[in-house]
Amino acid sequence: MDTSTALHTDRYELTMLEAAIKHGTADRRCMFEAFGRRLPGARRFGVVGGIGRLLTAISEFRFTDVELDWLAANDVVGAATIDWLADYRFRGDIWGYREGEAYFPESPILIVESSFAEGVLLETLILSILNYDSAVATAATRMVTAARGRPLAEMGSRRAHEDAAVAAARAAFIAGFDATSNLEAGRAWGVPTMGTAAHSFTLLHDSEEEAFRAQVVASGPGTTLLVDTYDIAAGVETAIRVAGPELGAIRLDSGDLPTLVLQVRAQLDGLGARNTKITVTNDLDEYAIATLATVPVDSYGVGTSLVTGSGSPAAGLVYKLVAHEGDDGSWVPVAKASAGKASIGGRKFATRRRDGNGVAVEERVYVGLGPEDAHGIPAAERPLLVPLIENGFVDEHHTGAEGTLRAREHHAAVRKELPADAFRLGRGDPALPTVIAD
Amino acid sequence: MDTSTALHTDRYELTMLEAAIKHGTADRRCMFEAFGRRLPGARRFGVVGGIGRLLTAISEFRFTDVELDWLAANDVVGAATIDWLADYRFRGDIWGYREGEAYFPESPILIVESSFAEGVLLETLILSILNYDSAVATAATRMVTAARGRPLAEMGSRRAHEDAAVAAARAAFIAGFDATSNLEAGRAWGVPTMGTAAHSFTLLHDSEEEAFRAQVVASGPGTTLLVDTYDIAAGVETAIRVAGPELGAIRLDSGDLPTLVLQVRAQLDGLGARNTKITVTNDLDEYAIATLATVPVDSYGVGTSLVTGSGSPAAGLVYKLVAHEGDDGSWVPVAKASAGKASIGGRKFATRRRDGNGVAVEERVYVGLGPEDAHGIPAAERPLLVPLIENGFVDEHHTGAEGTLRAREHHAAVRKELPADAFRLGRGDPALPTVIAD
Repeated sequence: MDTSTALHTDRYELTMLEAAIKHGTADRRCMFEAFGRRLPGARRFGVVGGIGRLLTAISEFRFTDVELDWLAANDVVGAATIDWLADYRFRGDIWGYREGEAYFPESPILIVESSFAEGVLLETLILSILNYDSAVATAATRMVTAARGRPLAEMGSRRAHEDAAVAAARAAFIAGFDATSNLEAGRAWGVPTMGTAAHSFTLLHDSEEEAFRAQVVASGPGTTLLVDTYDIAAGVETAIRVAGPELGAIRLDSGDLPTLVLQVRAQLDGLGARNTKITVTNDLDEYAIATLATVPVDSYGVGTSLVTGSGSPAAGLVYKLVAHEGDDGSWVPVAKASAGKASIGGRKFATRRRDGNGVAVEERVYVGLGPEDAHGIPAAERPLLVPLIENGFVDEHHTGAEGTLRAREHHAAVRKELPADAFRLGRGDPALPTVIAD
Repeated sequence: MDTSTALHTDRYELTMLEAAIKHGTADRRCMFEAFGRRLPGARRFGVVGGIGRLLTAISEFRFTDVELDWLAANDVVGAATIDWLADYRFRGDIWGYREGEAYFPESPILIVESSFAEGVLLETLILSILNYDSAVATAATRMVTAARGRPLAEMGSRRAHEDAAVAAARAAFIAGFDATSNLEAGRAWGVPTMGTAAHSFTLLHDSEEEAFRAQVVASGPGTTLLVDTYDIAAGVETAIRVAGPELGAIRLDSGDLPTLVLQVRAQLDGLGARNTKITVTNDLDEYAIATLATVPVDSYGVGTSLVTGSGSPAAGLVYKLVAHEGDDGSWVPVAKASAGKASIGGRKFATRRRDGNGVAVEERVYVGLGPEDAHGIPAAERPLLVPLIENGFVDEHHTGAEGTLRAREHHAAVRKELPADAFRLGRGDPALPTVIAD
């Protein structure tokens, strides 16, 4: 597999780099911003995902001989640009929303300050990571809402690109999921992993009873038995006969779940298996989970809809040049005027204003201010931008398994601050208005 | 980044492996099958994507000390299973549809014949790759249909996980796209790359004219100038003034394209730039492309909708045990009976039957036959399963950049064989009925 992230880049980033080098504007100090013009799927809030992955990817963004030889051989850029790329590492500053933070339209999620050359090269990588991970995290937090405290497991690896699957498991964990089926997400990011058996294990054996017996011998009676390969009532009966009433759980992966769960609960109770849990995993999304709130489900497994952002598989974030340094050293705001795609030029600073009860009421985007102006912000406003990379050095607080866990804790705290309206599942307006303060 | 594909695996594959080892059924000869119960998005046909990537990924599927140490430290499986995994490489046989082949409900896209242990371990990886790449290829071929021979470029990298983006570019190329913006897809898979400039390049400079001049100096007048940063009519005028009437192309990335394209074409012609092409790139999908058929667009760039499968981001393929060896050495068909998720047990062989004009009329799935029975198939039926891996050895015909190009050629040939109904963009029934022949 890949060893550098440097070619995960659109060709035009390099073409622009080359033209700017030739024209003498490559070193002009610039400010780029990643933001969303609207929330995916008319949701009430978005969740920033991918920051921890992104910081590591930026630190690994180097052009080695493999990449440079290919670029030269294919005439993507000329010799002078190749020389420039050989020395490239990002040496600028990046501020951003913490991973797990809520975001709203126009929230300046990531602000990159560097030369044009250094910043433009990262556009594709930044957007790929933030768009996918945020799409998953934004879907996941809605499932957490719908589950009302019941545990959720991510199990959609098979419905996403094999590497995206790992990122999805991580993003879901940050948004409040409890575990994943994906082993690499466990190894790389410390996400708890889970899983017991598929239908194939039952089909491998000469009877369901034999399969259950093999599983219970291997994993103990605390395991989860999948009971819907043939007849569910017979499967439940067999499961308890084989494992005893201390069986950990049964799993249902098909059928009309609201009805089935009630039937199976009654059957388990009748068999004395009052502590045996019921987990369900049949093409769930936030709406299906919500319809199961009144029946005795103990935990949910969510696959396809989670890893595909439940209808919004990309968060729609964009990366725009918002300012460059003028001849006098001050920032010159720039913005495009394209129909339906206008951007807001200038440096940004952002806060979330809370009311007297600590409930968030407003996303404030200050245009023309920088982080150094944060001391003038009223106490009711929580500053949202934190330093992520300074002079090219990554703040390791946000990376790795520990950064992932911190992002999860941060997201839980952010949810507590949001107004009740933020947790409505229907399509609608953002839960907070974004106020642009000039 | 990752160096082994082995942990891109759901935990339950290893739990099942361990139970089967303990119970003595791990070595039972098995046949697994990947298929779809329906086509994604009620389309008329699906396109098999990912075969070339999958074969390489399977050959790299090894448990090294990194993975084994983590599995042991986290008690995922016990010592005996760790030992087994240390020696693992896939030694079985895989038959499948060629990459770029059309598929229909119940088409046996991939058939894995191996011990239970060897085959069950690959489930997650197989489905991840086939589901994502097939989703993109299936969306892409519809865009090719809508474009009616005009060139298409893939440029959705920023709207997909950074590694998924590379796979998407490859899948789109196989389905008939002409180029990609993604450099890694060029390096790894030989997909032609393209791209010139973004709005940030215009905004970097003190005027649009200065930006255009810098680009034309660097890339020559054959380049593509992006003219919608400010005012489009002024941008077109400036572009031709700077580059001359031999400017290669202008790009439109916003606004009401059907109207704009006509206006810009007239303006270009009026400026004597009759050979300057118009490329459009504004949130296109197959339907938006279709509405542009009557205006003089020269090429399309497609992003978000392509890399997210245009509404169907996962193809919905599943991987099921369909047979295992019985005590007498013959195949015992097995199938689950789960509500709405029943499977068809038994070995499969598949053909596409053509009428006297060579037009495909039927997908035939023979149950109980194997590839060795192909000699008995009528000449009007084209056998669809080819050997991909034999005794663990990959057929390199399907892998790498050359395999990718072959898949693209195969898809073009397959499209010629399909009936006209297959190219309707509306939702509906599959273009061919699947006939299960017992």
